Amino acid sequence: MKKIPKPALERLFLYYRLLLSAHNNGEKIISSVEMGKRLDLDPAQIRKDLTYCGEFGKPRIGYRVEGLMNELQTVLGLGERKQAVLVGVGRLGMAIYSYSGFAKFGLEIIGLFDSDPTKVGLNLGGQTIMNIAQLGEFIRQKRVPLGIITAPAASAQQVADIMVDAGICAIWNFAPVTLKVPENISIRNEDLAIGLATLSWNLINSGCPYIQPTEDELD
Amino acid sequence: MKKIPKPALERLFLYYRLLLSAHNNGEKIISSVEMGKRLDLDPAQIRKDLTYCGEFGKPRIGYRVEGLMNELQTVLGLGERKQAVLVGVGRLGMAIYSYSGFAKFGLEIIGLFDSDPTKVGLNLGGQTIMNIAQLGEFIRQKRVPLGIITAPAASAQQVADIMVDAGICAIWNFAPVTLKVPENISIRNEDLAIGLATLSWNLINSGCPYIQPTEDELD
Repeated sequence: MKKIPKPALERLFLYYRLLLSAHNNGEKIISSVEMGKRLDLDPAQIRKDLTYCGEFGKPRIGYRVEGLMNELQTVLGLGERKQAVLVGVGRLGMAIYSYSGFAKFGLEIIGLFDSDPTKVGLNLGGQTIMNIAQLGEFIRQKRVPLGIITAPAASAQQVADIMVDAGICAIWNFAPVTLKVPENISIRNEDLAIGLATLSWNLINSGCPYIQPTEDELD
Repeated sequence: MKKIPKPALERLFLYYRLLLSAHNNGEKIISSVEMGKRLDLDPAQIRKDLTYCGEFGKPRIGYRVEGLMNELQTVLGLGERKQAVLVGVGRLGMAIYSYSGFAKFGLEIIGLFDSDPTKVGLNLGGQTIMNIAQLGEFIRQKRVPLGIITAPAASAQQVADIMVDAGICAIWNFAPVTLKVPENISIRNEDLAIGLATLSWNLINSGCPYIQPTEDELD
């Protein structure tokens, strides 16, 4: 399988989601220009990205929606079931666990873990929250490939260590820390504070009338 | 203010957070090599990024932790208060609202909105959830610069339209849709499904022993 750079990979998923929506609307053919309009992307970039997939398009006509959608689903492995453990059953953990939008991309969270004794033993959507002490054995026994970390920053590395030691292959990290893991482990960081920081910079530099200038700036 | 490309901006925030931590640990000087180790980044990249800030380093010695931290805080506007409205008080909205880690970067969510009549009127952390019908007027009256969308995909564009019309300058979008807004509005998309899709591709291509090959692959 040809290696696909991360930005292209992310766009491929956007195309997949767009095609899924188009397919559900009954559309049979879609052009890169139309895709570009809907996603606010350059059609030439879209065509270039789609060379990672098979030939589903005719020049000046467009792509076959269903064929390309299925190919993208295969390339991205979205139809494959991906079992996961989730560690840290706080508000964010619960939000990730109960978000129904991930199940259609194959995510199946089969174990919930926490270190807080007031949470261990509680039932969440039909699953009982387990003690973190059982995490390693659970991953080994069930052969779980994916670990989701929604634990606090202070414990995230410890959790990652247990996961890696037990054979996990990929980690979805929501804790605001840089995790140290072996090179063969795939990590995806969802560091929400970064989003806030970039918005912050944009706001103070955008001349937004709703932002009050500070004394420093009024010179 | 010199324009800073998005990837550099995101890294500047990682440096800020690292320096904050170093400062809290009592560290006075830190080298780009040390920063590189802790963040798993190339020290040359770090030094290049930091040219967007003032001169806080001495070659072969390192950067003054406190000085550089304060400069980054200023450049990123992290000390500035950023008032926001949040629309869509589901699990993710509640998680964002109650996450204490954003307050130290200046985020202040001053209005919660939903269209669900069973949620309107409920008290969440001292704030009463308001009807979405009041959103536009609230933004105008309070001069709110930032809107957070944690509403479902189907209503996200409508919500964005109300916000833009009312004068909002930036949108933090958690809904899995591409929003159409005027060019001068800053948008940050947090599309969590993209993370899942990239992990999915990595897992099926990594030779993970915990992933069962499908019949197609066993040829």
